[in-house]
Amino acid sequence: MLEGKDPEMKTRSVMKSLLPNNAGATRKRPQKQWTAAILLIGALLLFGYTTLPDAALTSSLRNHFGHWQKTLGFSEPQQHFTSKDLQQIILTVPDSKKAREWNLYYTSEPHYLGQGEQQAVWTQQKWREFGVKNISIEYFPVPIPVPTPIYQRIALLRRDTDNKKDTSDTELYVALLRENSQYVNPVSSKIISTPQYAAYAPSGNVTAQYMYVNFGRDCDYDDLQRASIGVEGKIAIRKQGVISGSTALMVAQKRGVVGVIWYPDPQFDGEVTESHGYVPYPEGPARAPDSVLRRAGVKLDSLYQITLPVIPISFSEAVPLLQALNDYGPKPSDLGEGWGGGQLEYRGVQYNTGPSPDGVVINLVNHMESKNVSAIDVIGTIKGTIENEVVILGNHRDAWVVGAGDPNSGSAVLNEVIRSLGVVVKRGWKPRRTLMFASWDGHESRVWGSQLWLHANLPLHLNTTVAYLEVITAATGSEFYTKASPLLQDVIRDTTAQVLSPNRTQPGQSVRHNNWDGHLESEGGGDCIYFVMDGITSMNAGFRPGPTDPVFHWHSDFDTVEWMDKFGDPTWGYHVASAQIWALTAARLADQPILPFNVSAFADALGHYLRVLKDKLNELPAELSSPLCSFDLEPLGYAITQLQPVAWRFDAHAAALTELLESDNTAYQKHSHIIQEINFKYRTFDQNFVHLNGEPGGGLKNVVFGRSTYRLNMPAFPDLTYAIEKKDWCEAEVSTRRICTS
Amino acid sequence: MLEGKDPEMKTRSVMKSLLPNNAGATRKRPQKQWTAAILLIGALLLFGYTTLPDAALTSSLRNHFGHWQKTLGFSEPQQHFTSKDLQQIILTVPDSKKAREWNLYYTSEPHYLGQGEQQAVWTQQKWREFGVKNISIEYFPVPIPVPTPIYQRIALLRRDTDNKKDTSDTELYVALLRENSQYVNPVSSKIISTPQYAAYAPSGNVTAQYMYVNFGRDCDYDDLQRASIGVEGKIAIRKQGVISGSTALMVAQKRGVVGVIWYPDPQFDGEVTESHGYVPYPEGPARAPDSVLRRAGVKLDSLYQITLPVIPISFSEAVPLLQALNDYGPKPSDLGEGWGGGQLEYRGVQYNTGPSPDGVVINLVNHMESKNVSAIDVIGTIKGTIENEVVILGNHRDAWVVGAGDPNSGSAVLNEVIRSLGVVVKRGWKPRRTLMFASWDGHESRVWGSQLWLHANLPLHLNTTVAYLEVITAATGSEFYTKASPLLQDVIRDTTAQVLSPNRTQPGQSVRHNNWDGHLESEGGGDCIYFVMDGITSMNAGFRPGPTDPVFHWHSDFDTVEWMDKFGDPTWGYHVASAQIWALTAARLADQPILPFNVSAFADALGHYLRVLKDKLNELPAELSSPLCSFDLEPLGYAITQLQPVAWRFDAHAAALTELLESDNTAYQKHSHIIQEINFKYRTFDQNFVHLNGEPGGGLKNVVFGRSTYRLNMPAFPDLTYAIEKKDWCEAEVSTRRICTS
Repeated sequence: MLEGKDPEMKTRSVMKSLLPNNAGATRKRPQKQWTAAILLIGALLLFGYTTLPDAALTSSLRNHFGHWQKTLGFSEPQQHFTSKDLQQIILTVPDSKKAREWNLYYTSEPHYLGQGEQQAVWTQQKWREFGVKNISIEYFPVPIPVPTPIYQRIALLRRDTDNKKDTSDTELYVALLRENSQYVNPVSSKIISTPQYAAYAPSGNVTAQYMYVNFGRDCDYDDLQRASIGVEGKIAIRKQGVISGSTALMVAQKRGVVGVIWYPDPQFDGEVTESHGYVPYPEGPARAPDSVLRRAGVKLDSLYQITLPVIPISFSEAVPLLQALNDYGPKPSDLGEGWGGGQLEYRGVQYNTGPSPDGVVINLVNHMESKNVSAIDVIGTIKGTIENEVVILGNHRDAWVVGAGDPNSGSAVLNEVIRSLGVVVKRGWKPRRTLMFASWDGHESRVWGSQLWLHANLPLHLNTTVAYLEVITAATGSEFYTKASPLLQDVIRDTTAQVLSPNRTQPGQSVRHNNWDGHLESEGGGDCIYFVMDGITSMNAGFRPGPTDPVFHWHSDFDTVEWMDKFGDPTWGYHVASAQIWALTAARLADQPILPFNVSAFADALGHYLRVLKDKLNELPAELSSPLCSFDLEPLGYAITQLQPVAWRFDAHAAALTELLESDNTAYQKHSHIIQEINFKYRTFDQNFVHLNGEPGGGLKNVVFGRSTYRLNMPAFPDLTYAIEKKDWCEAEVSTRRICTS
Repeated sequence: MLEGKDPEMKTRSVMKSLLPNNAGATRKRPQKQWTAAILLIGALLLFGYTTLPDAALTSSLRNHFGHWQKTLGFSEPQQHFTSKDLQQIILTVPDSKKAREWNLYYTSEPHYLGQGEQQAVWTQQKWREFGVKNISIEYFPVPIPVPTPIYQRIALLRRDTDNKKDTSDTELYVALLRENSQYVNPVSSKIISTPQYAAYAPSGNVTAQYMYVNFGRDCDYDDLQRASIGVEGKIAIRKQGVISGSTALMVAQKRGVVGVIWYPDPQFDGEVTESHGYVPYPEGPARAPDSVLRRAGVKLDSLYQITLPVIPISFSEAVPLLQALNDYGPKPSDLGEGWGGGQLEYRGVQYNTGPSPDGVVINLVNHMESKNVSAIDVIGTIKGTIENEVVILGNHRDAWVVGAGDPNSGSAVLNEVIRSLGVVVKRGWKPRRTLMFASWDGHESRVWGSQLWLHANLPLHLNTTVAYLEVITAATGSEFYTKASPLLQDVIRDTTAQVLSPNRTQPGQSVRHNNWDGHLESEGGGDCIYFVMDGITSMNAGFRPGPTDPVFHWHSDFDTVEWMDKFGDPTWGYHVASAQIWALTAARLADQPILPFNVSAFADALGHYLRVLKDKLNELPAELSSPLCSFDLEPLGYAITQLQPVAWRFDAHAAALTELLESDNTAYQKHSHIIQEINFKYRTFDQNFVHLNGEPGGGLKNVVFGRSTYRLNMPAFPDLTYAIEKKDWCEAEVSTRRICTS
């Protein structure tokens, strides 16, 4: 924003114009009247339909007319709060004990999609206590029934090849398919556990020889083919990572694999593995050998294509299966560098590919049953003076199992953010822009809660949303990370510089200077996916494990408050730091007269993305054309170099106006038109890169950012990148043109 | 808006704040710099790709930063033009001779999708002459190759049933498949003619017995079934009308029909038919017997489902085929009232259904060849003081054949609108909001030009568009009509009251009081379709034939300037009136500080739509429930009755503020926030009824308005209506909920 200036002074100056809630009384009446009407409609509808959404409560019509009685004497109100007051409150209110209390509550009962109603009601009640007046619980029927397992089996069998009947089988090993966490949540006195499955995984029952296929990438299967190892008709065991589960399934199915087993190899646990001498959880920080990593099973936009069964298992369950392949088929060293890295040699695994010897087979059974459920979102609103500019803070509440790290460290922190802002609201603060808080349901099955909410009123959200700010894994390690629109680069760098590092080694050391290198990863992650696709500026942020941090048991029974207490966040200081960063960022976006966005950072990011693409091109053979199409990155490069100075001057202009507003109390009124125009351009900048894709399933598509998730960053310019990887120069040409004309 | 007030005074008052173009010089520089850059990119891209769009020219990034150098001293400018000045210019500039000149030009060469490049360049040049500085030609590659016929045949044959070889056939009648218009356009000295086909019609070659199926509705086939007349394996001849061509094809294919022939029966030509003694065109006002009505052949969103061939023919070509059915099969009087009305009895047609006797068959051949083309749109912009609020005026330029009525009376009129506004611009006017002019290509094949333009930058359009105003058939009869958002009700009633009726019977009689009953039909028509689906407030308007007007040869070779001169608009006064209405409406939307919208009219319209639905329900048997779902319109009724008073008060509030602005010059600055908020609510009101549909092909969907076309009005609440018609109470329940929660 204002580069080179003292951040504290900057914050103070930009947050000067905080607003009292004068005339609140006259405004509230019609609001209530209308709410009552809608409630009555809701009641009438409920009469005929049991799973009726309270969505009527958030009727956009009501939003439209909430302020019809607003007095004509509207003007820019006086400043009751300085930025320093607000900052002071945000930096002091978030509390480690309270964060722990909220986390314990959220992790006390199963709360997968459709199980979260009680927690939704509790959340609504808490937010009300914190000072948010307008909170609705919204039910969205999920359009595709949600499957859960009713019977599963993974058994290693010796089968008499002459007698193919089941009766001849000898069970060599049967996986327990249970994680064996012993942690009892003190709120519910329950051990929370969930079957081991992938979301929307198909049912199936196959018995076949099996193989180890490394990560199950296309190149892994190519390597096997070169080594004359056929995978058709086999069950494949793969290490999780590098590619998404859904991609792994697509590739496997294409190659003729009949069933897939996933496991999390300690390869990705950095230094902290048993093989490096670390004791496993619950005694030590290394991965619990029984821990399982649940994931989505099928690609979001091609639901019915996958037919082969898949079950995720722990590495302790994988070991007997992999051991039985020892000495069968090539070893990693025979197949190339990409096959190395597995960390189970200390458990007697040689990582031979197999196939398993004749007569040694796996019986893989995954029997799923589907039911209709609703995603239950909680939406809270603090109306701003500019009602139709909205900053949304969201976290998904539903967890695969316990979820102390993912997502309920974020849920706990969202409560602390709201409690902090509520303190200010109770003292009479009204933000310049509307603040909205969302507790989503159904993320783990298919990002349902946020997707359905967003798309039920998409045009309105495109017209109003300033940014979507999300924290899911607030405290799972010491490394701060953020996937965010480059527009938010400076504001995130600023706010992280204002928050004390939980593991600081010097007095006053900030998160920015101890936990983060300042690099923004590609927009995406968590529930940001659809916001990004729709071109809404977004941030996903949190703390994740670095290479020497205790292993975070992602999507596992072991992701508990006990792990937090012992290893993840013993002081609960990362929860507090996350709350401070999140609330400060939100307050700035909600309160600064001119949005603290940076298009110059966006232009620079585009330049960086282009360099990455060029590097990729340089690795390819010389010809970049086909008989039909020739392809050239130059126009894109030229467009970006043209954008950069314009963007820089735009930001400089906005900064100059911000300075003027600081020094001149009358400037806001005088320049309200231009302020509005600048904010409009900032707010809609990300939307420039979005078009209606016209593809099956429909919806909007972003030409710059792909569907990045928590652990997988998609390349920038996704279509162009894939076209280049496929050497499809016609597609590359079309993609380039599309980006250039955005 | 301000009901009961003198409309002239109202207009004067609301158009007071017209703006000069101060500081224009300093603003233009960066604009040019950026345009040059984009042009260069365009040139570079062109180098590698011959059909490259100039779309780069309209780069939204450029739009974003066009004003980066805007001075800080921005403020509400002085009033150089009163509303009276502006109104005076709009009511005097449009000229009948010029309109005829433009119409002659546009109809001088074939200008179907992909043929219109020369006309696009000409249009750009004209608009530039008229005073629009910012005009781009944008190329959008059409994603589905466009088919045109290369061989067609309709032959009535006697076939020896014992000897099935072609050699035994006797040709009883072979349709010429040519309209035989003799009109030579004086600009090109050409007779413009096009083959007789339906857009995206499949190829096919079938020989079969044939039947007359009335309109080819489901109920028509039901009637035939009840009379034990099988249609399977037959070719079907249908009268055009009542249902869309695509629906007729879907139904026919479902019923086992193997080929379809369409013709326009004089039944829909009102009084003006040969059977009522009128002489046919070109000598008289009745339908030219050789005229053909081309239409879209397949449903917009299920393209590949239709496989049976179809050819549209004239009624003169249909007569021999229908005559050959005389005395075969039931007569209309045997089948019920719905079968009556055909007007070819004077030509010896009895309208028996057939089937044709054994051995009398039709050979129907439609051989289409597809090619890749681009839609070529022309987009002109007059930037407003509020750059990011945009009023779009659009007309499609492409015609099925000649198109003097549809669409080029509208194209001619758009030029006159732009010329009129250009006169004001040349005198220093800058509208409050941005005005955008669009000359679309590719409407007749699948609404490509507007659809691709809109969806390439959908979020931006949702964020900026105030309304889309369209005139296609500016002059094809004496009846004014409009399909428009109820928000525009009052402004259209006002502007039509200010424009003199071309066929006035009393001095000063206005269009409103001589040509229109003041009723707004459901939003839709022409290129409005995707604007309506996306929730953008729209108006489609024009003049169409009333029951005693000369027959308009829609989509026919006979839709020529000669017809205009002789029958359609001999004085070219309807062209002038359309230009005045269109320009006045646009000027009001662009210039009034508070948008002249009416949510109360929208609320009333919803009430009306509900009553229509209730009437439909009352015609059905008593039970409105299934074992799974019960359905009730009450909640919807309740929501609407709740909306009405709120909407009324909102409009009253806006009207009060408008009055205040009229009497107090300082009020605008003082109330700029609330003005902005009111305009935001007005501008986005239609968008409240839109959601992302998640269906194949994707995109947004409007719960209130369906895909109405020029001649077919879809019911309001389309999904709910269809659910009720299908008696699908679950779907009805879901639809009701969706509308209620909008």
